[in-house]
Amino acid sequence: MAINYPNGKKFIPPKDQPAKQTANPKKKKDLSFSNRGKTLEDELNETNDYYLQLGLAVIHKKPVPLQIVKVEYPSRSAAVIREAYFQAPSTTDYNGVWNGRYVDFEAKETQNKTSFPLKNIHDHQIHHMSKVVKQNGTAFMIIRFSSWQRYFIMPFNELEVFWNRMMTGGRKSITLQEIEETSFEITPGAFPRIDYLPLLNKL
Amino acid sequence: MAINYPNGKKFIPPKDQPAKQTANPKKKKDLSFSNRGKTLEDELNETNDYYLQLGLAVIHKKPVPLQIVKVEYPSRSAAVIREAYFQAPSTTDYNGVWNGRYVDFEAKETQNKTSFPLKNIHDHQIHHMSKVVKQNGTAFMIIRFSSWQRYFIMPFNELEVFWNRMMTGGRKSITLQEIEETSFEITPGAFPRIDYLPLLNKL
Repeated sequence: MAINYPNGKKFIPPKDQPAKQTANPKKKKDLSFSNRGKTLEDELNETNDYYLQLGLAVIHKKPVPLQIVKVEYPSRSAAVIREAYFQAPSTTDYNGVWNGRYVDFEAKETQNKTSFPLKNIHDHQIHHMSKVVKQNGTAFMIIRFSSWQRYFIMPFNELEVFWNRMMTGGRKSITLQEIEETSFEITPGAFPRIDYLPLLNKL
Repeated sequence: MAINYPNGKKFIPPKDQPAKQTANPKKKKDLSFSNRGKTLEDELNETNDYYLQLGLAVIHKKPVPLQIVKVEYPSRSAAVIREAYFQAPSTTDYNGVWNGRYVDFEAKETQNKTSFPLKNIHDHQIHHMSKVVKQNGTAFMIIRFSSWQRYFIMPFNELEVFWNRMMTGGRKSITLQEIEETSFEITPGAFPRIDYLPLLNKL
């Protein structure tokens, strides 16, 4: 699909963006005066807060699922969890409602420059999105190429094609060109940073 | 609203149901051959699993939100969270999609026999449900009177009336009779235990 820059400018990859590891989304810097160093999660949380404040949509990130094993109750203070383990999520990270529509997505960033590795996605997340679409929900993936500061919305039905290609022995990633051809590009703005809602009308 | 028992039988409160504390939903017994001792959360998770397996709806309980402070990475084993704290949830516990509709609810049980205390609900959960309804989502509360094994779906617009009554100095609970008059009763079954989906058409 066409890449549109509303201001007519040619895309210039910023050079001062530190590359982010997809594997470690918790590593973040706090540079509140700019978007430099922000994780995709930070940017989406801010965008969703903006939508919430303006009454445009109610979309939240789900908490990380944990198996809690041991909790202590110190006197006169809050309960402290002393032993817990990360669990594999059975759904995507984000969901909510917009104009009566159920919206459900996963967000992933990569520092790769030419392709998006599918190992970033879990099998059960694909199954979950497939079920959402069967219930007439809107499911998609937001991909950030951190090196280029480029953002895409890939509809689930397109993602599923690439997933099935991998599952039948094909390549384990989606090339940037394939993403350009099958996804909608989000032009990053100042506020909100990732204004993805208007693109959902095209899905 | 009318209380319907499809089999025409008069409701007989079961005597062997242990009362459950709303304040401690984590306390549970495992009696897999019966519904005795099951928390409302157990029952709803089973019901939602049933809906998921049959492709009827995609509704999940959200994980408990935690603030993670300290994580250890023992060699050759999974990361262990060594310090974390419970956070107040900013949304309801359950959401998902059913026939394209966004579904969002909170579930609460009480061992009270004649009324449901509103202290079980948080202010921000009311605000969240209000925003969901403004986005044309379906929001409601499932209430279990554990002593009677009676279950109700209260639409958010009804819940809001009782909430506002409390906020303007009125009573801090909803009487069982008021619930009978404003809510839809779910007849508990064997499988799924709490078949709430058919009632959503009435909301």
